[in-house]
Amino acid sequence: MTAKDAYDKLRTHMKEYWLLASTAELLEWDQETYMPKGGADNRADQMGLLARLTHEMFTDPNVGEWIATCEASDLVKDPESKEAANIRELRRMYDRRTRLPKEFVEESAKLTSKAQHIWADARKASDFKLFEPWLVKILDMNRKKADYYGYETEVYDALMDDYEPGAKAAEVEKVFSGLRKELVELNKRIANAPRRPDISILKRPYDVKKQRIFAELVVNAIGFDFRDGRLDETVHPFCTSIGPGDTRILTRYYPEDLGEGLTGAMHEAGHGLYELGADPKELGMPCGFADSLGMHESQSRMWENQVGRSRATWVYFFPQAQRIFRESLEGVSLEQFYHAMNYSAPSYIRVEADEATYNLHIMLRFELERAMLRGDVQVADVPGEWNKRFKDYLGIEVDKDSNGCLQDIHWSMGAMGYFPTYTLGNLYAAQFYAKVREEISDLDKHFEKGDFTPLLKWLRENIHIHGARWRAADLCKRVTGKPLSHRPLIDYMNNKYAEIYGI
Amino acid sequence: MTAKDAYDKLRTHMKEYWLLASTAELLEWDQETYMPKGGADNRADQMGLLARLTHEMFTDPNVGEWIATCEASDLVKDPESKEAANIRELRRMYDRRTRLPKEFVEESAKLTSKAQHIWADARKASDFKLFEPWLVKILDMNRKKADYYGYETEVYDALMDDYEPGAKAAEVEKVFSGLRKELVELNKRIANAPRRPDISILKRPYDVKKQRIFAELVVNAIGFDFRDGRLDETVHPFCTSIGPGDTRILTRYYPEDLGEGLTGAMHEAGHGLYELGADPKELGMPCGFADSLGMHESQSRMWENQVGRSRATWVYFFPQAQRIFRESLEGVSLEQFYHAMNYSAPSYIRVEADEATYNLHIMLRFELERAMLRGDVQVADVPGEWNKRFKDYLGIEVDKDSNGCLQDIHWSMGAMGYFPTYTLGNLYAAQFYAKVREEISDLDKHFEKGDFTPLLKWLRENIHIHGARWRAADLCKRVTGKPLSHRPLIDYMNNKYAEIYGI
Repeated sequence: MTAKDAYDKLRTHMKEYWLLASTAELLEWDQETYMPKGGADNRADQMGLLARLTHEMFTDPNVGEWIATCEASDLVKDPESKEAANIRELRRMYDRRTRLPKEFVEESAKLTSKAQHIWADARKASDFKLFEPWLVKILDMNRKKADYYGYETEVYDALMDDYEPGAKAAEVEKVFSGLRKELVELNKRIANAPRRPDISILKRPYDVKKQRIFAELVVNAIGFDFRDGRLDETVHPFCTSIGPGDTRILTRYYPEDLGEGLTGAMHEAGHGLYELGADPKELGMPCGFADSLGMHESQSRMWENQVGRSRATWVYFFPQAQRIFRESLEGVSLEQFYHAMNYSAPSYIRVEADEATYNLHIMLRFELERAMLRGDVQVADVPGEWNKRFKDYLGIEVDKDSNGCLQDIHWSMGAMGYFPTYTLGNLYAAQFYAKVREEISDLDKHFEKGDFTPLLKWLRENIHIHGARWRAADLCKRVTGKPLSHRPLIDYMNNKYAEIYGI
Repeated sequence: MTAKDAYDKLRTHMKEYWLLASTAELLEWDQETYMPKGGADNRADQMGLLARLTHEMFTDPNVGEWIATCEASDLVKDPESKEAANIRELRRMYDRRTRLPKEFVEESAKLTSKAQHIWADARKASDFKLFEPWLVKILDMNRKKADYYGYETEVYDALMDDYEPGAKAAEVEKVFSGLRKELVELNKRIANAPRRPDISILKRPYDVKKQRIFAELVVNAIGFDFRDGRLDETVHPFCTSIGPGDTRILTRYYPEDLGEGLTGAMHEAGHGLYELGADPKELGMPCGFADSLGMHESQSRMWENQVGRSRATWVYFFPQAQRIFRESLEGVSLEQFYHAMNYSAPSYIRVEADEATYNLHIMLRFELERAMLRGDVQVADVPGEWNKRFKDYLGIEVDKDSNGCLQDIHWSMGAMGYFPTYTLGNLYAAQFYAKVREEISDLDKHFEKGDFTPLLKWLRENIHIHGARWRAADLCKRVTGKPLSHRPLIDYMNNKYAEIYGI
C-alpha cells in the first residue's frame, strides 16, 4: 500500500470514527437537555455501546499500520505540513489508546466509579479521612497509567498529555510561578482597595425568560450563528459539537443573578465559535479539531472575560440590557454596571471564583497533585497543605474540607493533569488578545458599535482553522511571536483592576 | 454450541443492535425537532453510517447460524412459546435482509431517490405523465424485490410482508370488500343527512401555546407519562421510541384549528403507549416490539378515534377545554363540540380525510397498486382508474392529478404494500374496542370521570406486552375470539354517525 493510499484510508476511517463519536455527543447533549428521566438506564447502555464501538474503531490494528506506512514515507517530510501534523497527532492518540491494557482500563473504571461515590459522601460529611484511602488508590492508578503511556521526566507529564498534548509540568510551573507571585500581590491590592464595585446591581431579580432572550441576543451579536448552533439550558454549562454546522452551547440562568447565565453563555459561545471555525475538509483528522483543552479554554475565556467584561462591549450591550431589564437596571450607569461585572473577592469555591482569583485556585491544585504524584506531599497531609496554600494565596482560612480539598470531582474521577489547562487557557487568551490589539488597534471602537467581526475573523484565521496542526505552545509562538508568558495576563489584569478599584 | 448458548448470543447481539438502531432514532428525532439547519449534511452522514452499521450487525453471518442452531433444537418445540416466536420473527427478518443483493439495494436507493424528486416536480405541475416512466421502473424494482424475497401466491404478499408480517393480499381484500361496500353506503347517507355538525367551532383562533398545554393535559390524562416520554412539535407528526422509559411523540398545531394538533397528539400518544407497554425483558427481541404496522396503527387510531372522538371522553375534557379556550368555546355545548369532532365530508387528500372517508382512500390505493403489480392496470391508466374509483367511492370528481394519484409520496419511495396497514389498523382498533367494551361494560363511565386506566390496562395486558409474539391476525383471533372482520368497524361507525347526523 502506498503512503497516499494509507493516508486516504485513515481519512475515511477517521471521518467515520468521528461521525460515530459525534453521535455519542448527541446522546449526551440530549441526556442533559430533553431526555425524559425514565430513559436514563437505556441511555447509559447506548452510551456504553458507542464508547466501545468508537474505541474499537480507533484502536483497529489497521489504523496502526496506516499510520506506520505514512510515517515511513515522504508524506511527513515537511513536519509543518498538515499531513505530518495529522500523522503526528494520530500516532500520539493511537499509542495512548492502545498502550493501556484492557484489564487496567476496566479496573480503573471500577475504581473511579466507586471513588466518585465515596468522594460525594466525604464532601457531604466534609471529612477528608473518608476519601483519603481512595485518593491513595487513584494516585497509584495514575502512576501505573503514566508507566503504560511512558514519559521522559515525570509522571505528571504523561498524565497532562491527555488534556494538553506536549505540555511539560516543569515548563508550566515556570510560567505559573511568575503569575502566582503577581496575582497574590494584585489580590492583596484589591482587598485593600479604596473603592469596590456594587455587586448588588447584578444580584437583583432578573426574569429568566428575559435572560434567555438577552443571552441569545449577545451570543448572536458576537458571532454565534443560530443557523449553525443552539443555546439551551442545563445544570452544568458545556459546549458540544455534533458536526459541521451543528454546535450546541448550554448555560444556566439564576432568577436573582444576571452575571452567571450570561457569562456562562458567552464562555460556551467562545468554545462554540472555535468548533464552528474548524476546517471542514479535515473532518475527523487532528487538523480538523482542537485537542488541547488549554487552547479551547483560551477561546471561551477570551469571549467571557477579555470581551465580555470589557467596557467597550458594555457600551454596546448595556443600553439593550437596560431596556430588557428595566426595573433592575433603572438608574444604573454604564460605569457601575461595568464595574460590577468585574467585582472580585476571594472565595472558597473554584467554580464560583472571579477572574482575578480563579487562577490561584487552579495553581494550588496543580502544585498539590504534582507534589502528590512525586511523593513530596503525602495524601494524609493534603488538607493541611491545601489550607496553608489557600491562606497564602487568597488570604482566607479554609473553614472545612468541603470548602477546600474536597470541593472538586476531578481527582475522584482519576483526572490529574487536567486542572492546569484552565489557567493555560487564561494565559493563552491574554497573550492572543494582546496580539490582536496590536494588530487591530481600534478593536474597542468596533465593540462599542456591536461589531465583533474583526476579532472573530482574526481568531478564525490565526487559530480556529488550524485545529491541532500545531501544539498549543507552538501555535502561541507562531501567532504572537513569543513563547507563553504570564506577562500579558497579569498586565491585562493589573490595568483593568487598577482603574476599577483605584489601586 | 448449544441452542441455549445460541439463543443467549442472539439476545445479547440483538440488544446491541437495538441500542444502535435506537440511537439512529434519536438522530432522526433530533433532526425533526432541535437540530440547527446547518447540521443537515453532517446528520445525513451520521444516519448513513448508522444505517450501514446496524445493517451489518443484523446480517452478521453469526446471526444466521445462531438462528439455525435454535431452529434445529427443542427450544422452538412449542410454537407458542416466546422463544419460538422470537426465532420465527428473527428468521423472517434475517432472510429478508440477507436476500437482497447489495447491488440491488444500492440501485433501488438511487432509483427511489431520483423518483422522489421527479414525483415532487410532477405533483407541483400536477402532471402524471412526468412521473409515469418512473412508476414503471418502481414497479419493476418491486417485482424484482418480491422475487428475491420469494412468495407463494402473488408479488403483493412479498412486499406487504415488510410492513405487515404474514398478511396476504387475498385475505385483506376479503375483509376490505365488505368494508368498502358498507362505507360507500354510509358516506352516501352522511352526504344526504338531515343535519350536519358545525365544523366552524374547531376552526376559530386557538392560541398555539394554549393548544400545547391542552394537548399535554389530554395525553397525560390518557396515560402517557411525561416521566417516560416527551411531546414536541414537528412538520409531520410521528412517534419514536429511544428505549425503555423514553418514547417521544410529536404533533403539529395550527393557530386556527383545534382538531389537528390535538387528535395528532392523541394518535401519536396511542403509538407511544404501545411502545411504552413493551416487555423490557425482551428488549431487542421480536417479543419486545411490534413489527406489524397495522397493529401499531390500531393503538394510535383507537386513542385518536374510539376514545378521542367519543362523547364520554369529551364529557371529561370539554369543560377543561372551555376554561382554556374561553373566547373560542364560549357558548358552545358539549354536544356541538362532540359533533364537530366527528364532522365528515369527502375530500381529495388522504391525510386530511376524516374517520368515515379515510378507509376509502386507502382501499383505492391498495386495489390500484395490487392491480398494477399484477399487470391488470397499466401505469398509463392510473389517473383514469384512480379518478373513476374515487367518484364511485367518495362521490366527487378529482379535478387534477395533484389532488389524485400524485398526492402521496409512498410510490415514489418504492413503498408498495404499506397503504393497507392503515385500514388494517382501523379494523383491528374497532374489533379490539368492541371486545373491551364487552369485558368492561362501564368504560364510558370511567372516561367521563377522566379515568382511562381500565382501557390502558386491558391494552397492555392483551396487546402491548406481547410484541411480535403472535402475528397480528393471530393476536386478533386470540384476543377477540374471531378472525378480523369489517363488522366491528362498520357497526361502530354506523352507530356513531347515525346518531350525530340523524341518519
